[in-house]
Parts: sequence; C-alpha cells; structure tokens
Amino acid sequence: MNVRIPDAEFEQRVATIQEELARRDLDALIVFANEGEPHNVRYLADYWPAFESAGVVIPAEGEAILLIGPESLTYARSRSRLHKIRQLLAYRESAEPEYPGVQLPSFADVLEEACGGRAVRRLGTAGTAITPIPVYEGVRAAMDGWGGELVRADDILTSMRQIKSENELACMREAFRISTIALQAVLDEMRPEMTELQVCGIAQREVYAHGGEYEGHPLYVLGGRHSSHAIGRPTHELLERGQVIQLDIGARVAGYSSSIGRAVSFGPVPEPVRALMQVALDAEKKTMELMCAGVSAARVARQVQTYVQDRGLGHALLYGPCHGIGLMECENPWMETNSQYDLVENMTFQVDSFLHTDEYGVRFEDGVRVTADGVVEFPTIEREITAL
Amino acid sequence: MNVRIPDAEFEQRVATIQEELARRDLDALIVFANEGEPHNVRYLADYWPAFESAGVVIPAEGEAILLIGPESLTYARSRSRLHKIRQLLAYRESAEPEYPGVQLPSFADVLEEACGGRAVRRLGTAGTAITPIPVYEGVRAAMDGWGGELVRADDILTSMRQIKSENELACMREAFRISTIALQAVLDEMRPEMTELQVCGIAQREVYAHGGEYEGHPLYVLGGRHSSHAIGRPTHELLERGQVIQLDIGARVAGYSSSIGRAVSFGPVPEPVRALMQVALDAEKKTMELMCAGVSAARVARQVQTYVQDRGLGHALLYGPCHGIGLMECENPWMETNSQYDLVENMTFQVDSFLHTDEYGVRFEDGVRVTADGVVEFPTIEREITAL
Repeated sequence: MNVRIPDAEFEQRVATIQEELARRDLDALIVFANEGEPHNVRYLADYWPAFESAGVVIPAEGEAILLIGPESLTYARSRSRLHKIRQLLAYRESAEPEYPGVQLPSFADVLEEACGGRAVRRLGTAGTAITPIPVYEGVRAAMDGWGGELVRADDILTSMRQIKSENELACMREAFRISTIALQAVLDEMRPEMTELQVCGIAQREVYAHGGEYEGHPLYVLGGRHSSHAIGRPTHELLERGQVIQLDIGARVAGYSSSIGRAVSFGPVPEPVRALMQVALDAEKKTMELMCAGVSAARVARQVQTYVQDRGLGHALLYGPCHGIGLMECENPWMETNSQYDLVENMTFQVDSFLHTDEYGVRFEDGVRVTADGVVEFPTIEREITAL
Repeated sequence: MNVRIPDAEFEQRVATIQEELARRDLDALIVFANEGEPHNVRYLADYWPAFESAGVVIPAEGEAILLIGPESLTYARSRSRLHKIRQLLAYRESAEPEYPGVQLPSFADVLEEACGGRAVRRLGTAGTAITPIPVYEGVRAAMDGWGGELVRADDILTSMRQIKSENELACMREAFRISTIALQAVLDEMRPEMTELQVCGIAQREVYAHGGEYEGHPLYVLGGRHSSHAIGRPTHELLERGQVIQLDIGARVAGYSSSIGRAVSFGPVPEPVRALMQVALDAEKKTMELMCAGVSAARVARQVQTYVQDRGLGHALLYGPCHGIGLMECENPWMETNSQYDLVENMTFQVDSFLHTDEYGVRFEDGVRVTADGVVEFPTIEREITAL
C-alpha cells in the first residue's frame, strides 16, 4: 500500500503557519532539518535531505521556499511539494566543499525574496535544538543587516505536528503494519550465536521488502547486559541462551516513523527477569488505560510512576511512560510528571514501558492514538512474556 | 572478519591532540557529534550516539571526558574507549524532554573538571558545521562566566583524520569488501518492476549479513530521471527497461564508511547515455592516474575538469573529482580546483566521477589510498558499462 500526504495538506500546513505568523507579528518563519532529523522540512515540503541539510522559509504572506544545499537541486525538484527552491552554501555537507565558481544566494537574498522584497523585521526560528552554527550565524547576519530580530518559534510547528490528520494516521498505520512483519520475522528467525547486527539485518530486509522507505529509528537488538540500555545500537556480540534481548523494530513510511518494542529470551526466562517483564507489561497496560482526551499528561505520568514504585521498582524507571511519535520516532510532546498539557484526540504516542537494572533491561513499547474514550493501538503483535 | 581500532590508538589520538592544544595555547578542545554525523566523537571515544547527541572534551593535560545525553549512560559505558563519562541535558533528544528531578552537570562543571579545577581561558571547538544552538550557547555561557574565549579549531581533527593508520585502513578494506558483496547481490537480483526501495533492501540485507554495522551512507538506487541526482534517496517508483540506474552502495565497519558507485541499465544502453558513461569511466581512470603523494590536489581537479571539458561535457560536471572518505563517506578534504593542499600518503579518497544532464546521470565511484607511487584501490567490482 503506497500511502502519502496529498499536496492539499501540505498547502494547508503552510496556510496554518501563515495565520499564526500574522497573529505573532512575525514576517516569516525559518526552519532547519538534517539527514538524521528531517522532520520539520519533511512536514512542510516532503523533502528529505541526505549528506546536505535543508530549510524552509515561510513568509507571513506569499510563497514558501525550500532551501537546499549546492548538490541537491534535481533531487529536490523531484520530490519537494514546494515549487520554489533555492540553493545556499550554508546547507552544504559538513565537509564544507567550496564549489569554486558557483554563485549562490545569501540568507538575506532568500529572506527578502520570500517576504516580497521587503526588509525582514521579525523572523521566527524553528528546529532550534538542531540548527547548527553556520546556519544560525548566516541568518543572524542577515537579520543584523536589517536591524531585525530573531524570535524562537519552535512551538508553532510542534503544536501543529502533535495532532495528526487522517492522512498522517494512515501513514503511521502502514508503518506499524510493516513493523509487525519485520518484528515477527526477527522472532521467527533469530537464533543463539547470531550477532545482534545479523538479527538487525533480518528486520532491515523486511522493512524494505514490504514497502518501508527506511528504518523508523536506529533499530535495537540488544542482548544480555546491552538490554539495560535505554538507548543503544546493535553490536557484533553473539546472542546467547538465557539472555534478555531487547528488540525495538520500526519502519518509516512517507516520513512517518513507527516502532514496536519487546523483551524476549532464548529458553526459559530467569525468575527476576520475568518479574521485571511482568511489571513492565502491566505498566504499559495501565498507561493505556489512563490515557484519554482531556486527561492531564502529568497525571498519567505520575500515576504510572506511582504504580511502578508501589511494586518496588521505582529505581528501574528512567523517564516518563510515553513520548510523542510521528515524523520522528521520538518527538514532542513527552509525557513527564511536570508536563503542562492535556491529551487531545489524535495525539499519537509511543507507550514506552522500560525498566532496567545495571545487568539487564526490559522494554515493551507500542504506538497509540488518543481518542475521546481512551486510546486505539496502531498495528502490533501480541504483548506477552516470550521465551523463544 | 571483526576488525576494530585498538585502545592504544584511541589513546594516541588524544595524546596527539593534547600536543597540538599546547602548541596553540588552548586549555581544552570540545567536539560535537550527532546520530547522522558521529565522526569526531567516534574518532575519539568510539561512541556512536543515537537519538541523543554527544561530545568529547579533551584538556591540554589530563583525562578526556565523553559527554552524553541523559538516557545513554549504560550504552556509553559499554562502548566508550574513554572511561570518564558525564551526562548533560544539552545532549538530550531534539524533542527536549526535561527529566524532572534528574540533576546533571553544566558545561562549566565538566570543562572545569576536565581542566583540573581551573577556569578555562581558551577553549577550542571542533565540529562547528554541525554543532547546534543549545550546545553552542551552553558552552558560550560557561566561557563567558570565566571571561574566556572560544577558538575555532576544526582543523586539528580534520588534519589528523585525513591520514589513515594501518588499523583504519583495515577497517576501510573490510567495509569495501562488504560493499562489493552487497553491490554484486544488487546486480544479480535487481529486476525491472522492482521499486528503487526494494533494491535498496537487497543491499541492506547483505550489509548486515556479512559483518557491516550500518549502511555507509544513505544508499542510492536511482532510476531514470532520478539518476540525474548528485544526492538522492530511493523511492517507491518502479525500475524500468532502458533506464539508467545509479547505484551507490556502501557498508560501515567499526565506524568507517565505504561506497561503490555504478551506472547500469536494463537492456541495451541508449547511445547518448553510453557516451556519457564512457567519459565518466575514462575520467575516473584519469583521476586515479593523476593522483600520487606530493601532487597538488587543485592540479588534479583542474586537469580532470579540463579532460571532461575537452570532451564537450563541462556542463555535466557538478563538483570536483574526489572527496575524502573515512568515518564519513564524504569528509575532508575535498578535491576542488581551488584546493590548497598536496596529496599525502595514506590519504583516502572516493574518486567520484559523476556526470549528469537534466534527464539522467551516471556515476562511477571507488575508494583509493594515496601512495608514494600513485593510488591503491580499495576492494571493488569491475568497472565497465553494464547492461543487465
């Protein structure tokens, strides 16, 4: 199934931002993206940089412009939903080639062009957490030239992206469907004495064979002590009988990520591990039961924390019970005990139940959509204590 | 074959930097890395961030410290070659979770610790092209507190990394060996009516099955008009008979990237494409013949440019004939007509012969090591005009 976001929805996204720019008296918004964090530019242009980075400038009125590096023009033309495209040296590869003889516009040129030839007084910025120094300094210099002001406006995009449209949900369902196939293949084919990386390759094979465009995130196949990692990468170490193995397998479709997390073992699960697995499973179920449109995110986080603490495992918690998912496997909003928002219908979360000791860890993780009555799960596989 | 860089070489890298810091009167160097651009931190600590980012601070005297995000401690302990590890909020995920109740050190704390409790007067920075605003502002604030100075020192690491050691070359040979297997599998199995992404999956499967730890770069399977892309990503479009298909397939081993590029077609190669392929092949051979330790990089670039221009295809060139390869598939130094360096033994390059029109493009690309007499190629497959 080849799902994608229609052009009209990209146009609507730009229009929604323009209304917000007017409300905030901003002349334009500039956003940044790179190879590993393409989200904001993918959201606005469907463009997905590689090697080089990218940006979009959206004026309060008029046509948005996709900003790319010197080598990506034919690529950008073939996939950008924005028709106006400009190449800037600031988005070049990190090895900083100079392209002698090539003439490219400056930030001042493209900002002025976007804003209909006028000086830019107030420019919003988004993607602050990943915007690198050369882009920041280039934009800063342009604004200094006009005596203008930079205004952080990350929240314009994070607010919009938190609530998924029907088209976005369709992309996510498809991504999770492919994830179930990839994870099931891993469970069927993985054997002791395979390396973590070889098992990762089973998942990669299935992701591409079934319509995925990439991994949904760096995949986890983490055996033994490595299962204690909240974040990790697979290695050349061999999987062994009796180990806990943390699997987090996800596909990406039309930019939208997915992931399903399971803890398994080869052979009988040792008793203390089984106890940890059961609390992680129960905590994931509890989290889903607590979630519903209108409920305070902080309240869910506190109740799940208490639930795990009451079972003597408060020390095994590292972070809140959920994080947002969409164009990144992990995106805004996080759900933490100090969160300041209520759940809204069509927010999408990973319910991420991770408990760890220094020796091992277990994770059960699945995607959900918030509804008026609770949550609806994205496609997944059975959630249980699994001994292969 | 499980190759890796020994601990002693990591220690030597730190020691070499410390000598240079003393020469430049710098108190310390701080470097940055992220999921997509891990190179400098991988070079110093073998640490490879995911989701979160990372840094290393190397004092002019004393122990270097790996800087990680809040969720990566057990992961970092399991793979860092640096023993001292500190968690900072600035290296958190881009979704910016707050981890309420968690106490973490500031940049001032870790810089002072690295420098033996002294105020830092002059701090070198590396990875400027990718360092994001929150990290930059955090470091800047720490230095302002001491009235200290930030000094760009990217060249310390780029200079060192340009010349490969025997261990690095062994990792690269292994990466290229796996690339030959993955590319051959693609050539053997790809068929018309497969999507570009499905073909990409063949390569991914082989990379992991044969000892790779990841793709060497975002892989290219670009059919028809997409072959005109200097940079691209595979899509769900079907490959068809008569198309030019640009393949760039590479594996990563112990952090070291590789890539082999070929242009192929299903069925007979149309005549104008064949002519472009022949010049690209000849230009690649010419480039290799011109390269040798002691030769000016700019001279090679100019001679190859002239060679292609003389064949009436100057308009089909987009950039210089070579770029460095190592911990990134594309890294310093680039070889351009204005380059300011001479080739040195054990520099490693991708000889990247890419010619394109608006309709299609052809690339032949292979890795080489510079020697006193010329170049030695990394493992590759036959270089020829291929009709499948």
